[in-house]
Amino acid sequence: MALLLVVIDGLGDLPPSPLEKARTPIMDRLAKEGITGMMAPVGRFRVPGSDVSHLQILGYDPEVYYPGRGPLEALGAGIALKEGDVAFRGNFATLKKGVIVDRRAGRVESKKAKKLAALLPSKIEDVEVIVKHTVEHRLAVVFRGKGLSAHVTETDPHARAPPLKARPTAPNAKKTASVINKFSSLSHKVLSSAPLNRSLSLPANYVLLRGSGVYRKVPSLKERFGLSACCIAGGALYKGVAKFVGMDVLNVKGATGDFNTDVDGKFKKAAAALKKYDLVFVHVKACDSAGHDGDFEKKKKMLERIDRALKHALPYASSIILTGDHSTPVALKRHSGHEVPLLVWGGERVDGVRRFSEQECMRGGLGHLHGRDIMPLVLNLLGKAKKYGS
Amino acid sequence: MALLLVVIDGLGDLPPSPLEKARTPIMDRLAKEGITGMMAPVGRFRVPGSDVSHLQILGYDPEVYYPGRGPLEALGAGIALKEGDVAFRGNFATLKKGVIVDRRAGRVESKKAKKLAALLPSKIEDVEVIVKHTVEHRLAVVFRGKGLSAHVTETDPHARAPPLKARPTAPNAKKTASVINKFSSLSHKVLSSAPLNRSLSLPANYVLLRGSGVYRKVPSLKERFGLSACCIAGGALYKGVAKFVGMDVLNVKGATGDFNTDVDGKFKKAAAALKKYDLVFVHVKACDSAGHDGDFEKKKKMLERIDRALKHALPYASSIILTGDHSTPVALKRHSGHEVPLLVWGGERVDGVRRFSEQECMRGGLGHLHGRDIMPLVLNLLGKAKKYGS
Repeated sequence: MALLLVVIDGLGDLPPSPLEKARTPIMDRLAKEGITGMMAPVGRFRVPGSDVSHLQILGYDPEVYYPGRGPLEALGAGIALKEGDVAFRGNFATLKKGVIVDRRAGRVESKKAKKLAALLPSKIEDVEVIVKHTVEHRLAVVFRGKGLSAHVTETDPHARAPPLKARPTAPNAKKTASVINKFSSLSHKVLSSAPLNRSLSLPANYVLLRGSGVYRKVPSLKERFGLSACCIAGGALYKGVAKFVGMDVLNVKGATGDFNTDVDGKFKKAAAALKKYDLVFVHVKACDSAGHDGDFEKKKKMLERIDRALKHALPYASSIILTGDHSTPVALKRHSGHEVPLLVWGGERVDGVRRFSEQECMRGGLGHLHGRDIMPLVLNLLGKAKKYGS
Repeated sequence: MALLLVVIDGLGDLPPSPLEKARTPIMDRLAKEGITGMMAPVGRFRVPGSDVSHLQILGYDPEVYYPGRGPLEALGAGIALKEGDVAFRGNFATLKKGVIVDRRAGRVESKKAKKLAALLPSKIEDVEVIVKHTVEHRLAVVFRGKGLSAHVTETDPHARAPPLKARPTAPNAKKTASVINKFSSLSHKVLSSAPLNRSLSLPANYVLLRGSGVYRKVPSLKERFGLSACCIAGGALYKGVAKFVGMDVLNVKGATGDFNTDVDGKFKKAAAALKKYDLVFVHVKACDSAGHDGDFEKKKKMLERIDRALKHALPYASSIILTGDHSTPVALKRHSGHEVPLLVWGGERVDGVRRFSEQECMRGGLGHLHGRDIMPLVLNLLGKAKKYGS
């Protein structure tokens, strides 16, 4: 018995929806042979972030377990966090005359950004600083040392404005705020004088920090539910969530988290993983990005590519759950609180729904689920649920 | 006004389901004239034991009220429990060369088991021991005295292995563990030398204890909801749950809790009871047993027998609720977390569903209910609900 959980980021949409219009013969066959419904990852009409939604879907109530975005990104970037580490998402940005004129330093090339990241300070006073570049302007920044706290404000002004000073929001965070401010000014100094930056019209001469969080180890899926589980994803955040809950992260060359990702490669890897793991979690990001861009055709095409790639993994799964982490309607270009369609194939009942779409799944036999229902569903399908009572 | 609540144990199944395939003209008529839905007794996809599920359906949140299996079985066996009694489910077992070679002593005949049960010690130190034989190898064993606790481990190894010693799991349970261990060795001594056992190839020479629980009286259905209620059941557990919540237990000769039970007799008794009680709870066990045995035909036939027997009670009920306590799919041979179908006839709306089956009820007008919704449903149908607000 092995279950394939496919989360299509930003899947849900409004009519006429890309999913409705896409040619998805495999998903439709699974719908015909299985059961469908709608799922509100964090409660009806609530707008979830991807981090919180994934935690909830994987059985980790974010009210209890959410560590903030920073630690999840840092884990996903490959930093081996230790308990008490304070982690941030970092952006290379362009500072001119005291003002952040571009929050992404013109989306600086990954190759250059990696070199610039190597110049950043690795120690501020007695605090170790671990910086890891991921894609384009994006960084994970971790502070490791005694007496640190995540109760500090971010430095990103989110506007054409001066960068913000980190301020403590709890009495025990004064040292952390001071370390961050020193890191910021020191980084600016080092980056400003870097020869690499001279060739850039929007030099990457500042590091903005946000999404602070302190890392604490949580009980794994194995410890809590007896599940062996792995994750196949492109984006750092999803790998980070997977590591956070104790999944193995399987890397696929060409799994980029963008539209050019190797979807076939991901589902081929899933096929192999289904022979070894109870739960194989595959994440595909690009539909969310297409939603944010308002690009109907791109979202539709990506869904069709996922549909074709599913064939690689089908023969190896005893059950399949196909859903999204939230809606990103192309008409809205942002996350929304509309439910996502959900399909369960194998080990479940059959509800007569014949297509995988928002329109059809809202009539499905599973009705309306909450994100927290997904892990009990997984355990029931795998025969790993503990009986309550006797 | 009188409501008939029929709980078919292990009712739910996977397609093609016995309920779908059974000829059930009366249930189908009730579905046509009533409203349907699906019910998850203890939450979506969670796998319930029968004890916990029945408590929840009867309005007793198991998180608050569940006393453990022992007290429920003891009440059902007819032992008049007192507050503070510590009760267990007991099994006659066969011990050979220090190893439990049969956990059920070859399912020892009831007649012989009853005689052997009479030999068991009735006092250990200052603790009174009350033993009651039920069916075959099954016993209820109650310890009554000062300073007892239910925080002890079971003695059943659930395997071909030496019996376990009871161990205290709380500081106040040392005496209880010691009393249980003395009871175990003394029982073994007495049973080993019983002449009756000499004729058995698998002598009933050991008593295994599990399902410990302490009995505390809880407010009755009458006290909590103003309901007069009775129970018609074969199995001891269900009678025990009924007594626990303050129902009268009506005995029907031939109501055995197995496939040969007198279903007609039970529903004739229900017909009479509906003239006297607000709520008549009828439990039929055999569908669950057929599910555990993986016997599709047996489960289907039992459903057809229940359907025919329903006719006796129909004229006397103003409302009928027909459901299960959990699914026991024949393909799985165990309890599962799939919802159970639910039918409400009389005093409710009509949803256009024309058959009582999983397939149809998932489209039903009541949607997806939790076990905790059933008692408010009962009270609403009986006009006994208290208004919230004014």
